[in-house]
Parts: sequence; structure tokens; C-alpha cells
Amino acid sequence: MKNEIRIFSPATVANVACGFDVLGFCLDNKGDEMVVRITKEKGIKITHIEGFELPYEAKENVAGVSALAMYEHAKPDGGFEIEIYKHIKPGSGIGSSAASAVGSVFAMNELLGRPYNKTQLTYFAMKGEALASKSEHADNLAPAIFGGFTLVKSTLPLDILQIPTPLDLYATIIHPQIEIKTSEAREILPKKVLLKDAITQWANVGSLVHALHTSDYKLIHRSLQDIIVEPYRKQLIPHFDDVKFAAMEAGALGCAISGSGPSIFTLNKGMEVTKNVKEAIEFIYSKTNIDFEVHNSKINTQGIKIIN
Amino acid sequence: MKNEIRIFSPATVANVACGFDVLGFCLDNKGDEMVVRITKEKGIKITHIEGFELPYEAKENVAGVSALAMYEHAKPDGGFEIEIYKHIKPGSGIGSSAASAVGSVFAMNELLGRPYNKTQLTYFAMKGEALASKSEHADNLAPAIFGGFTLVKSTLPLDILQIPTPLDLYATIIHPQIEIKTSEAREILPKKVLLKDAITQWANVGSLVHALHTSDYKLIHRSLQDIIVEPYRKQLIPHFDDVKFAAMEAGALGCAISGSGPSIFTLNKGMEVTKNVKEAIEFIYSKTNIDFEVHNSKINTQGIKIIN
Repeated sequence: MKNEIRIFSPATVANVACGFDVLGFCLDNKGDEMVVRITKEKGIKITHIEGFELPYEAKENVAGVSALAMYEHAKPDGGFEIEIYKHIKPGSGIGSSAASAVGSVFAMNELLGRPYNKTQLTYFAMKGEALASKSEHADNLAPAIFGGFTLVKSTLPLDILQIPTPLDLYATIIHPQIEIKTSEAREILPKKVLLKDAITQWANVGSLVHALHTSDYKLIHRSLQDIIVEPYRKQLIPHFDDVKFAAMEAGALGCAISGSGPSIFTLNKGMEVTKNVKEAIEFIYSKTNIDFEVHNSKINTQGIKIIN
Repeated sequence: MKNEIRIFSPATVANVACGFDVLGFCLDNKGDEMVVRITKEKGIKITHIEGFELPYEAKENVAGVSALAMYEHAKPDGGFEIEIYKHIKPGSGIGSSAASAVGSVFAMNELLGRPYNKTQLTYFAMKGEALASKSEHADNLAPAIFGGFTLVKSTLPLDILQIPTPLDLYATIIHPQIEIKTSEAREILPKKVLLKDAITQWANVGSLVHALHTSDYKLIHRSLQDIIVEPYRKQLIPHFDDVKFAAMEAGALGCAISGSGPSIFTLNKGMEVTKNVKEAIEFIYSKTNIDFEVHNSKINTQGIKIIN
């Protein structure tokens, strides 16, 4: 059995348009790396952090908290050392804390000989996610662990469904380098919504799931609409409407807020369109004073994985 | 080309639990029959009605109104005579008016050599449905025309999706012989709902569509929940909670209000369970003073059809 493992923990998109709070998907070429190794000494120790400044104290670190949750359940003979190579900027809206929370428990599970299944890993990771976002949710954890598109049907008990990913589906992500406070993104939402709007939204959720099952890209396009949350939250993201308009004009299937922002994602059919969408979005933001990053990604159907 | 045709126009269930206003399915052994024949004389004439008392004047009859809508669009040389053998009681909540609205246009389309597709038939049928329910909707029309499970993603423009039907799925329907006014069933609903409840509902819609695609009966069970409409409308149906409890105890996958009631439907896996569910429901209502009918049905994946 291996004593040490290196993993890639992917970035993810939650709140996929109509699927606010339930639908997410996994990105391919953006993610954190971690090295986790078994130690004789008991406990969880974070020995190295690169990329962003994060606490070394396990109880104060997202990856540490999820690791501790698993450690206390598994009660192994020894302990674990964790090195974190953080590439996903915290607060960017593409599952930075989820990647941290998932990475440690996935690696530990591999080193222990896989005593836990994916849903159980998600439970442990939720403890870490809760440190970052003050609530136990699995919107980003589920796609990071399962890969592809996931639907979190319920959190308690945890009920995660893997929805098929059409082969030719790509995402474009723009990350404007601004800060949105999660608390503000939450407070801006109404407690109540019109029943008729809710009906439109669940028709779209149903049809999006159907479209993913049938690889019906036109229906994906018709379904990727969020009439409930986006009208409120888009105010927090400068030039959201311009980005969306440009992306749709360039051929995107849909464009919406990633997580609670500030990142914006699009879904696109094929690499050609995806390149055009990226250019169109870059053009919009290049005219502003805001720093930004744009990248393209295939939908990652594997999720978190071991690397060499 | 045939001059005369006899058709079976099936009963249907709309508002399938979480899928209020969007999800419906088609029943197998309950439905109206119609005979439609080409006449030299222009216009739409209803020449015979059996089963229930309904107006003979085409403009006042649901089947007549939808027939007129198609007739005025198709502008054929002659006209049509319609005989209606009504078996679905109006106001029972299993798509009685939809069966009428669909029957005439389906038959006329066959006699004309199928100039219209299923979505176009639904458009004409919506005109008839509007006479009965004061609004143009396709909740019952879609499953009657397309068969199986349907999701009406939008009404304007009409966007109907056929969702796969698991092979071993049956329905049990109880029709308590009471009257619920559609206006009352509507007025009892709140204009606004909690966002958190709406999220639960759209998670269930997404998972129900996924479950139907994957024939995952356990997930169908977990998804068949309506936390938004049922709590209000069940008050209009005597002994609803008792029926639901008995049905679930007998093994039903789910139990909810059919359409806007008073009928209640269950979905069940296999004929054996379905028989038990029927007995359990009958037992509940046999202790009351209310007349009722219970029947079992395979899910009808064909929809409306020609018979001899």
C-alpha cells in the first residue's frame, strides 16, 4: 500500500442557472493539488501551503477540518500530513473551499484502502465546507467528488445523483477579480418567490436534466435560465448583462452566475464555439478597469483524481 | 383514404406531485371513444353524445371547439361529423376535457392524412381545453397526445418533452364522487412560496426526471413529493391523508392529487403491489359515505389511438 499520494482536486460550478442550490458540474483544467502522506504520529498536520495564505492549524483550515472529520471516524493507527498547493483563488465562486475540503478526505480514503464511498466522503467534506461558508452544503463537493453533472437532491440525508454529461459540452469561466461577500449574496435573495416563477424554474430544471440525458444541446440552451436568483445577484457582478449578451451572441448555450459569483460561467457545444465565447467575454472585460481571468474547460466527468 | 375513424382518447394525470403544472402521464384503460367522419357538408357537427350530458353546439362543446380550431386552419373541402362516447366523468380530475379536446383533432388529422404533428395538435386542443378550464394549458393534453410521461416546459411557445416510462410502472386512481370547483382549487393556492420550498420542489422535479430515465424506482419514490401545492389542496379532498398513508403502507411509490382533484393517484412498481394499493385505498373509502371508483392502469406509452 502506498504511503503517500498526490491528487488533483478540481474547481466546480454550483447553482447551474435554473438549478440553484441543486445542480453543479466539474471543471477539468483548474484545480488544487495536494500531497497527503501517512505518518506514525497521530493526528492531522498541515505541513506546507503554497499559492494562497491559509491557516496551518488543522482546525482552522478547510482541508484540515474535513480531514479531522474522517480521521475521527476512521480512527487509524497513525496520522496524516497534508501539503496544499492551492490554485483556485478563495472567493472566486468556482468551489475553492470545496476543492480543499474534498482533496484531503479523498486522498486519505485512498491511502486507507477506500473504506468510504463517495457519498460518505461528501459527508466528511461538508464539515470542511461549513468552516468556509458557515453552512453544510454539497453543491460544489458533489461535482468535485463524483465528476460531471450532479444533482444534490437533499443534504440531510445526503442524496446525490450523477446526471450524464453530453460528450461535446465545454464551459467558459470568467473570474472578475472582485470580492462578493457570501453573506451579501445571501441577503440579497428574497425569502419568498412567485409560485408562477417557481413553476417556470422547476420546468427548466426538469428539462435540463432531460436534455443532459438525451444530449439535446438545443434543449440545454432553452433550459439554462434562472428567473429567480440571477435577477437579484447579477447586480453584484459588474457588466454581467454585457458578458451574458456577448457570450450568447458568440453561440453559448447558456450563461449564468457560478456559485454565488463573482465568476460567470457559460456552457457551450464544441471547442470552436467555446473559443469564440472566450474571446467575446474577454473583449467585454478588457474594456473595464477590473482585473479578470478567463479560461475554457471540458466538463470533467471523472472528478477528483490521483496524479503522479 | 378512410372516410370514418374510431379513436380511444385516454384519461391522464396532470400535476404529478412535485411536477405541478408541468408533469403528466397517460392512463391505459380509461378513456373516451369518438367516431369522426368526413362529410360533404362544410363545418363541424356533433351528431351523437353518450355517457354524459354535453352541448351539441360545436362552439359550446370542448371537442367541437378544438375541432373548429383545426378546421379553420386546415380549410378542407368538406366538413366533419363527430360522435362522442364519453366515459371519463367531467370534473373528475383525470383529464376529461383534455380527452374530448384531443379526440376530435387527432381523428380529423388522421382523416386528413396527418398534415399536423403532435405539437400542432396540442395547439388546436388547447382551444378546446380553454373552454372547459378558462385557460390554455397542456398539462393533460400533452400526455394524452404523446403518451407516457410528458413535461410541458412552456406553453407559449409550446415545448413538450417526452420523458421515458419505466417498464414496470402502474398507476392506481381513486375518484371520490365529489365536486371540486377549479376556481376554488386555484384560489386556495398562495401567490408566493418560500424560496427554500421551491428549491426542494425543483430538486424533486430534477430527480424524478432522472429516475424515469434510469428506471430507478426507489428514486421515483423519493422524488414523488409535493411540498408546495398538496398542503393546500388536500383540504378539498376528504380523507386524503388516510388514503395516502394506506397507499404508501401498501407499497406505493408515491401518492398525490391528480390534476386539481378530487381524484388521487398513486404510482406503483409491478401489478402485485398495484393490486394491494387498490385494496388498501378501497378499504379507506368503503368506510365513508362518499361514492367512489378505484381503478388500476399500466402507464399508457402510446397515448391516443385508432381503434376498430
